[in-house]
Amino acid sequence: MGKTVECKVCKIEEGIEKPDVDELLVREYPLSIFLNEKKLATLLCSPENLKALTVGFLRTEGLISSSADIVSFNLNEEKGIAEVETKNKDIARESFFSKKIDLESIKEQAIDGIENFLDSLNCEPVESSSEIHTDKIFDFMRINLDYSDVFKNTGGVHCVALCDSKQMLAVYEDVARHNALDKVIGESLMKNIFLKDKAVILSGRVSLEMILKAAKLEIPIIISKSAPTSLSVALAKRLNITLVGFVRGNKMNIYANGYRIKH
Amino acid sequence: MGKTVECKVCKIEEGIEKPDVDELLVREYPLSIFLNEKKLATLLCSPENLKALTVGFLRTEGLISSSADIVSFNLNEEKGIAEVETKNKDIARESFFSKKIDLESIKEQAIDGIENFLDSLNCEPVESSSEIHTDKIFDFMRINLDYSDVFKNTGGVHCVALCDSKQMLAVYEDVARHNALDKVIGESLMKNIFLKDKAVILSGRVSLEMILKAAKLEIPIIISKSAPTSLSVALAKRLNITLVGFVRGNKMNIYANGYRIKH
Repeated sequence: MGKTVECKVCKIEEGIEKPDVDELLVREYPLSIFLNEKKLATLLCSPENLKALTVGFLRTEGLISSSADIVSFNLNEEKGIAEVETKNKDIARESFFSKKIDLESIKEQAIDGIENFLDSLNCEPVESSSEIHTDKIFDFMRINLDYSDVFKNTGGVHCVALCDSKQMLAVYEDVARHNALDKVIGESLMKNIFLKDKAVILSGRVSLEMILKAAKLEIPIIISKSAPTSLSVALAKRLNITLVGFVRGNKMNIYANGYRIKH
Repeated sequence: MGKTVECKVCKIEEGIEKPDVDELLVREYPLSIFLNEKKLATLLCSPENLKALTVGFLRTEGLISSSADIVSFNLNEEKGIAEVETKNKDIARESFFSKKIDLESIKEQAIDGIENFLDSLNCEPVESSSEIHTDKIFDFMRINLDYSDVFKNTGGVHCVALCDSKQMLAVYEDVARHNALDKVIGESLMKNIFLKDKAVILSGRVSLEMILKAAKLEIPIIISKSAPTSLSVALAKRLNITLVGFVRGNKMNIYANGYRIKH
């Protein structure tokens, strides 16, 4: 299934109307994930790397710990259905509900201020001696931003790349940032790629959710073209994650744990 | 509470390191909504217009139909808690879970293809004779994009404006697009502003979720600076919603129901 869809649009420019111009739209695709025959969530995503997305989603939601937990995977791309069977069938349904899981699982009581809120997320600091040079960061960001024809044609996708200190290992794209990161994570699990010495390169903004997903896999370095939010910086500092933002041209901002950045 | 947070960053430019440079981060704030003493969701948002956000969120999630359904609202900004009491205490908890509600409420069975998926969202077409002129669209987009000092300083927020055919009525900003739209909707409910003849102007992309929120309030016109996704165009066509994208300079693309656009 293509990543874009053709569409007729009416263009207006300087008051002149041009009807029926061909344009490409980024394809947004509903993937319903059934876990052990129960519906878990419907992800709105780009229709590629759907197994990686499913595995990554299950992992970052805490429903599996490795791809070995999955005994069968069946994808019906036309119907938009991924059926997953896991070894352990007793995964509690209450802790699902997609992007909201981390927040929903917070105990149901008042949380007093930001520090307690961050405590409640229940993540461990990342221990990693991995480092990366600024030259590589500039290179990898350029490659990442240049990767997607869909982005160039439609402006509608995010790219997330995985790299080590020397080279880019993979790039995944999706209409949603968090899905692109889940694809990286899922593919890494399927290929048994060790993530504790890697970095991820994001084409989009860094919100708390992106740091949380990285933290669950103990990815030590997160690099973004764009701005991080206050909570993402606070959580990165607390979890010993290196956070670099606004990587543009030959400039970058180091927001947290710069000791992993060499130049 | 300010919309930005000061932060020390280490800047690297052309290999030169400048430590401890003051930068502004967009503030991301966790707001936990308790409905009739039960926790409903934690929204990550910008800390302003939190009552509008709460009311809009409850409305677009289908938990209230107007602000008159709310008998008390109490906000503890420091703790990040909004407590809402509604007249009807029997709102089913199962249909909560924030952004996922529309997708989760889809019947738990196979959905065969995109058309059936869109059917399952269960929205009615919008009937509205409202129109807007392209000159106004260009003006309103300029004002909307110029509105936010936070955006200019941090690049980290989205703005959503409400307008009629003649003037801008309000602009709300948030770290998340869907929250900014919920703020517009919540404020409109609180002020009894009729939405069926209005347009919303978005600084960000248009995904299915944004069309769904507008559809629930029967907002007939959606205008975006950026790209729509394939599903958002398909749903806008089906629900008789006018969708305009890529409004830049003196150009725009009309993706659906252009009969409401005059020029």
